[in-house]
Amino acid sequence: METLYVELGNARYPISIGPGLLRSAALLAEPLKGRDLLVVSNTTVAPLHLPGLKAALPDRRIATCILPDGERHKTLATAALVFDALVAHRCNRDAVILALGGGVVGDIAGFAAACYQRGIDFVQIPTTLLAQVDSSVGGKTGVNHPGGKNLIGAFHQPIAVIADTDTLASLPDRELRAGLAEVIKYGCIYDADLFAWLETNIARLLAREPDALIHAIRRSCEIKAAVVAADEREHDIRAILNFGHTFGHAIEAATNFDTCLHGEAVGFGMLLATDLSARLGSVEASLPRRLAALLEASGLPVATPRIGVARALELMQMDKKVRGGMIRLVLLARLGRAVVTADYAEAALRATLTEYFA
Amino acid sequence: METLYVELGNARYPISIGPGLLRSAALLAEPLKGRDLLVVSNTTVAPLHLPGLKAALPDRRIATCILPDGERHKTLATAALVFDALVAHRCNRDAVILALGGGVVGDIAGFAAACYQRGIDFVQIPTTLLAQVDSSVGGKTGVNHPGGKNLIGAFHQPIAVIADTDTLASLPDRELRAGLAEVIKYGCIYDADLFAWLETNIARLLAREPDALIHAIRRSCEIKAAVVAADEREHDIRAILNFGHTFGHAIEAATNFDTCLHGEAVGFGMLLATDLSARLGSVEASLPRRLAALLEASGLPVATPRIGVARALELMQMDKKVRGGMIRLVLLARLGRAVVTADYAEAALRATLTEYFA
Repeated sequence: METLYVELGNARYPISIGPGLLRSAALLAEPLKGRDLLVVSNTTVAPLHLPGLKAALPDRRIATCILPDGERHKTLATAALVFDALVAHRCNRDAVILALGGGVVGDIAGFAAACYQRGIDFVQIPTTLLAQVDSSVGGKTGVNHPGGKNLIGAFHQPIAVIADTDTLASLPDRELRAGLAEVIKYGCIYDADLFAWLETNIARLLAREPDALIHAIRRSCEIKAAVVAADEREHDIRAILNFGHTFGHAIEAATNFDTCLHGEAVGFGMLLATDLSARLGSVEASLPRRLAALLEASGLPVATPRIGVARALELMQMDKKVRGGMIRLVLLARLGRAVVTADYAEAALRATLTEYFA
Repeated sequence: METLYVELGNARYPISIGPGLLRSAALLAEPLKGRDLLVVSNTTVAPLHLPGLKAALPDRRIATCILPDGERHKTLATAALVFDALVAHRCNRDAVILALGGGVVGDIAGFAAACYQRGIDFVQIPTTLLAQVDSSVGGKTGVNHPGGKNLIGAFHQPIAVIADTDTLASLPDRELRAGLAEVIKYGCIYDADLFAWLETNIARLLAREPDALIHAIRRSCEIKAAVVAADEREHDIRAILNFGHTFGHAIEAATNFDTCLHGEAVGFGMLLATDLSARLGSVEASLPRRLAALLEASGLPVATPRIGVARALELMQMDKKVRGGMIRLVLLARLGRAVVTADYAEAALRATLTEYFA
């Protein structure tokens, strides 16, 4: 098992990564001692992993709240189901939510933990690669609104993250690949060596070799933890984690959140952001092709949905990254270094949008 | 105009108290410059005060969201109306919500501000005495759940509080009196001189003499600001502000939140908490009668709804003040000094509950 820490101003929490962690009572025993527990999971994950988790905590009454599966259920109405469960089980401020599932479960359960009695503790137990390398770390929680993704939410840090790599064995190929998109993102924005390592080792990851998975997850979490520690509330630095996301969110919104997975949309978005960076001359002209090759080797789609330039611009305006009317974008200064900027030639943005969306 | 400040670890915001403030553009002009605004109000307050507020900001497009009036509408569904309005007006992270109304409007609008895009700024413009002396200051926001009051919420501080005493002219007598209950509370828990001043000046307050109102509001806000500054997140000290509230919440929940006003319930609750304090020997045996006399002089009801001892205990167990199974209560060490404790004779609690609820 590998353990690293997210260091915040007034808090610190461990991320544990390795096989068999979900069944290890020791890891959860101390922080949860004597407290009411509510496991929030979904209809897909609960049959696979809830029995193991429950068995690891044999001496405790564990309430459960099983949500419908899917991004389209990441709504305020679904969060209300968690509130109902907390009230039905008379959970008080000492209660702890265990979020067992992918990013959607973690985001909803974390948001419910943020709001119930103005904030109770929660533990992230991510069971997808995407959640293990991204959404379970950093404290962003929330739900979607018909007008946009994650428009309703809170910053609320978990007290622990437990990434059991065994849970990835049952992950569908498509979801594994979507998770790899975020790992590739960390290479793009922060670590050219990781990017090169991925180019060499992508087949090992697709074959789910444990050592390769642990390396990719640990390095991703290290990068995310470092960025979140520098800027918990996304005043500036943290925004680099949104590389590919402004374009990606537009794709997800235009396709009603049900056509591509979040990681796939981020893959598309990274292509656009890298293309724009190349047009602006900050990265070599070959980088978009090199990124597309890595995405393709990862089994990710690279043919963007043609959502239209006007619609894309409209949806990007709605995105949270807009301040004072300018669309702020995360672009690459070079491979391994991202910058947040609203200072770019609009013609270049239109050229990129036209190439990928028209 | 009087201005005092709530001092927090990493923030500071002004509370302005006086006549005519709502129509004073100067007070709002600077912090809101160039930002999208959404005024959240309700069907009762908007016709009275929205035109004046709008006139004070003549050069800005102001979106509005008018909620139904009443505590029974303090729900997640009503908060969703505010989210819808924010999205419909394409508000981004720079947007500011102006909460124009009583405690319910402020709590809902503040909660929506806390959650929209994981937190946007808001200004409290309280138009009831209760909101001016209590709910608009301190950053507690939230909505009710059928299982209990304020079970869903967030700590989110306003960037300013503007208490225009002119708005109290149109306040129904019953609501003015309910607000006085919270002023009496500050006397009980923090300031015996304020309690004595109220005994002498209650008729002036009921006659709405401006000087008396401003004195009562300023002293209440000073006390609340001091307590909140010492303990923003209610780890311990801040809980003294809940004097009368644990008993009061049980009454409100048992009567479905539609029989008595919050301030009236707090009035009842203070009677029980003072009675229990007297039974435990920490205050003189005559104090419950002295408090009842002041409540009656304020025109507040003192005949408690007979909700039953068992039901009261059950509802108090559900209250947020319960930790580790023990009901923590705010009791008086003496007039002007409150303590939070779970260390009291259960027989004394039962005797109090029996006297007031059986």
